Amino acid sequence: MNLILLYSNDFVKGTKRVVIKDRRYRHIKEIHRAKEGDTLCVGLVGGQIGEGQILKIDDAAVEMEVSLTKNPPVSLPVTLILSLPRPIVLKRVLLFACSAGVKKIYIINSKRVEKSFWKSLVLREEKIKEQLVLGLEQSKDTILPEVVFRPRFKPFVEDELPDIIKGKFSFVAHPEAEEECPKHIENQVVLAIGPEGGFIPYEIEKLISLGFSAVSIGQRILRVESVIPVLLGKMF
Amino acid sequence: MNLILLYSNDFVKGTKRVVIKDRRYRHIKEIHRAKEGDTLCVGLVGGQIGEGQILKIDDAAVEMEVSLTKNPPVSLPVTLILSLPRPIVLKRVLLFACSAGVKKIYIINSKRVEKSFWKSLVLREEKIKEQLVLGLEQSKDTILPEVVFRPRFKPFVEDELPDIIKGKFSFVAHPEAEEECPKHIENQVVLAIGPEGGFIPYEIEKLISLGFSAVSIGQRILRVESVIPVLLGKMF
Repeated sequence: MNLILLYSNDFVKGTKRVVIKDRRYRHIKEIHRAKEGDTLCVGLVGGQIGEGQILKIDDAAVEMEVSLTKNPPVSLPVTLILSLPRPIVLKRVLLFACSAGVKKIYIINSKRVEKSFWKSLVLREEKIKEQLVLGLEQSKDTILPEVVFRPRFKPFVEDELPDIIKGKFSFVAHPEAEEECPKHIENQVVLAIGPEGGFIPYEIEKLISLGFSAVSIGQRILRVESVIPVLLGKMF
Repeated sequence: MNLILLYSNDFVKGTKRVVIKDRRYRHIKEIHRAKEGDTLCVGLVGGQIGEGQILKIDDAAVEMEVSLTKNPPVSLPVTLILSLPRPIVLKRVLLFACSAGVKKIYIINSKRVEKSFWKSLVLREEKIKEQLVLGLEQSKDTILPEVVFRPRFKPFVEDELPDIIKGKFSFVAHPEAEEECPKHIENQVVLAIGPEGGFIPYEIEKLISLGFSAVSIGQRILRVESVIPVLLGKMF
């Protein structure tokens, strides 16, 4: 937890003081081993970041005087379109994407997505938010990404995707593509990532017909949770 | 398992046939659901890759006729120097680094490495190899990386590291560095990654005094298992 994420209801009304009793309190006490007078990095969800000075920490709560002075880090100019991966992988990908500064993620269906994945508890709103909050805490950010589920491939691609990619560079990661992933892009990007085993040819063609370029990272096939950081590393 | 990794003792002596009964057999049967006549991607550990055609598959074993014709994918020109992370993270990092084509990994101590990590079962040779094999199977490679443990920072840095970095570009990932991670390097690289919380100033100075450049990926602090793919994506 490189930043303690604050919510407006943590504040004592009309003051700049917060009182925290939940997992953040335990983290501050047990991991940071913080004492009265110590200063921690804090941020208001959706708002600015700054410092919290500990006024009091006891066996039940921590009280801090908060000063919010800086904007959170800039976000990545990328919209991620991700075939629903295995639930455990989804958790890791969400945490990573959020910590990397991705602010919009569409989770879509595709042929090689196992149907059972759509029933996973990991897809529940509160479980998704858990990973996003971990991602913000990791990267000292305060702006939660928007995560949207689209469990039907064709209607999403035909009805929504054309508007999503308008004015942006659109790429689909495809191990068989001959074009290499472009580097150092200074434009808005839409990046589509297939499931384990990849998009099927129909899906790739569908995306290409909309204007997506199929790009690869070379001969090696990486896991979904690895290929996303590699691609974002190359692009930005 | 995008490639079935073969060992010389899988071969029926004097033939190009292999008989496999272990987890690879179960994977071929249960995940690939392969039948007689099917062709799978195979590779001989340390050697070439090619195809294996299934001659027979029953309740106990699979027999394949193997033809090895191509070289494994090129490796990344990078030596990784990694502060021992949490064991679960080490597993993921080894799998990723191996699948990305890293062939030499030094796992070192540094001040912020928890001492208990050095006692983890994950550090056992056979456990390390498990992850490396998964990495090779993922990326259709056959060349196992060398993983070396150096549980004392100072002797490693003073006595070994100068030779390791000779003629190479050397970088240490450091969130506070002002220099951005360079892109598109066409040279041998040594990349040092600190533990959660980073190298301490003494360690950073020590590395810089040897010729390392401290580089950052921007304002965001990423987890060890994410920052490595991001950095390798940028560099190569």
